[in-house]
Amino acid sequence: MTKPFAISCGDPAGVGPEIIGKSWQKREASGLQPFFAVGNFADFQNLSGIPVRKIDQPIDADACFSDALPVLHIHEAAAAVPGDATLDGAQCALHALEIACGLARSGDAGAVITAPVSKAQLYKIGFRYPGQTEFVSERCGIARENALMMLAGPSLRVIPMTTHIAFRDVPEHFTEGLILSCARAAKKAMIRNFGIANPRIAICGLNPHAGENGNLGDEEQLIMRPAIDKLRDQGMDITDPLPADTMFHEEARSKYDVALCPYHDQALIPLKTLHFFDGVNITLGLPIVRTSPDHGTAFNIAGQDIADPRSMIAAIQMAATAVTNRQNHHR
Amino acid sequence: MTKPFAISCGDPAGVGPEIIGKSWQKREASGLQPFFAVGNFADFQNLSGIPVRKIDQPIDADACFSDALPVLHIHEAAAAVPGDATLDGAQCALHALEIACGLARSGDAGAVITAPVSKAQLYKIGFRYPGQTEFVSERCGIARENALMMLAGPSLRVIPMTTHIAFRDVPEHFTEGLILSCARAAKKAMIRNFGIANPRIAICGLNPHAGENGNLGDEEQLIMRPAIDKLRDQGMDITDPLPADTMFHEEARSKYDVALCPYHDQALIPLKTLHFFDGVNITLGLPIVRTSPDHGTAFNIAGQDIADPRSMIAAIQMAATAVTNRQNHHR
Repeated sequence: MTKPFAISCGDPAGVGPEIIGKSWQKREASGLQPFFAVGNFADFQNLSGIPVRKIDQPIDADACFSDALPVLHIHEAAAAVPGDATLDGAQCALHALEIACGLARSGDAGAVITAPVSKAQLYKIGFRYPGQTEFVSERCGIARENALMMLAGPSLRVIPMTTHIAFRDVPEHFTEGLILSCARAAKKAMIRNFGIANPRIAICGLNPHAGENGNLGDEEQLIMRPAIDKLRDQGMDITDPLPADTMFHEEARSKYDVALCPYHDQALIPLKTLHFFDGVNITLGLPIVRTSPDHGTAFNIAGQDIADPRSMIAAIQMAATAVTNRQNHHR
Repeated sequence: MTKPFAISCGDPAGVGPEIIGKSWQKREASGLQPFFAVGNFADFQNLSGIPVRKIDQPIDADACFSDALPVLHIHEAAAAVPGDATLDGAQCALHALEIACGLARSGDAGAVITAPVSKAQLYKIGFRYPGQTEFVSERCGIARENALMMLAGPSLRVIPMTTHIAFRDVPEHFTEGLILSCARAAKKAMIRNFGIANPRIAICGLNPHAGENGNLGDEEQLIMRPAIDKLRDQGMDITDPLPADTMFHEEARSKYDVALCPYHDQALIPLKTLHFFDGVNITLGLPIVRTSPDHGTAFNIAGQDIADPRSMIAAIQMAATAVTNRQNHHR
């Protein structure tokens, strides 16, 4: 049986505790398996209409999940003031992330789902990673470049091959080697997490109109073509470089399982245009399953009971899908 | 009263004649004002279920429009074979474009709508423009850099500030001067063509997350900030640089009238993701109204009676909107 999922609280002054509580409220309607929050119990005690239960170890979540939101209390402090980010809150977020990852690594938790943190706050307490993804990767002993970020919604999955770098730095990072490693990791992850035996991979050109035969840039011909040829030789079902603007409408999306995009906005624009409230971030290439909602701390609306839990619920559901498929895959 | 609109046939081996004919069929349901095709009469004679009438001058379109599709016959040749692009077809397309523009310039046509051409074919007969937009601009005596391409659908209008250039060349073209001129032209055009007295203009950052305070690129601070400050000093309602990925979902779109984007794919991805079948290209900054459907010749499906006329119909409707607003604006 699948172990309960660990959900790190994120920045406690953000919407993390609220969306975790609201997800618990919708556990039956959304078919969610048992999970528990990791954080400061005090941050969960004042959620509107959400009974909470302090637990001592992950396995205790199963017994109380139907009656109350289980909270693994790992940080002793007064409750955070919604919207008021503090250094102690950042410590709590980091502590929760560390513990939740550790529990997934040890097998005591079936997966880890991470609520949103404030990177600006984390940097103030010495955090040295571009984001939670890189932190989780390192804790799993996986080199950053081998962990891939996928954003997924009900009608689209995208992988940005380069992520948080300046626009003008993209071309130097966009190499044949990067394409090869991303495409291979994507294929493996689609099989393992989504149970798609022979995933259809679409790849998006770097330049407008995918370079229009070299008239609008030559990366498609010089870098992408050789990589695609090699990948096809190895049996991969991958497209030619597609024009970014015509590959994300409904009919086009039906023709592939995942889209690889050279840079951040090419991948994130269509995903968030279509799935702003139910997109999920899933880290591929890890020994554990890690997902997260695809939004930030939303300090500006924290504590008002108006945060939308759909992305968190989708993240829990996607983690369950990935766990199940991995179990089947290893059978 | 508004003069009939001139619709250039585009490449006659593409879907141009078919979507013009189908638009005529839907003239009543779509509330289309009289228009006429400009091209080779033979290319319109075999359209399924579309009666056609050869006319000698634009004004004759009004009288016959309710009974038949009026065609201004300007190119004598055998009918094009659908899907089979020829040099003569390119000549016909260019000839039709030239005549249609001329009629709009002289006032004999109320607007010009251009069906899709094949640039590859046009280049073979000596065409020396990046696209129809630049050709039309020149015929209107407007410098290329002063004519702006806007793509518009029912729920989104976007203007790419740079267009058909390689990805790596974008930063050098993306200057403060470009932002100033695009934003001013956009405002003027929104007032004139869409009747929006004080348009709300959103502007998208170049870098992911709009540079995240300079951590992911500095164009937002060095180039965009000074331009935005100047524009606001002049009374423009324009946003700070917005992250591209979070500005195109439904709720975000309701907060602006037009989005200015630093490069092609940032603008075209959301537009075509949302409005693949009903997006319209409208050229701003011209003395005449010029629109076009937002798709290509589709040689692969020409002649099969399966082409979708929605984008052409939307282009005719948007031209009518722009003509009406311009008349009101000058009153």
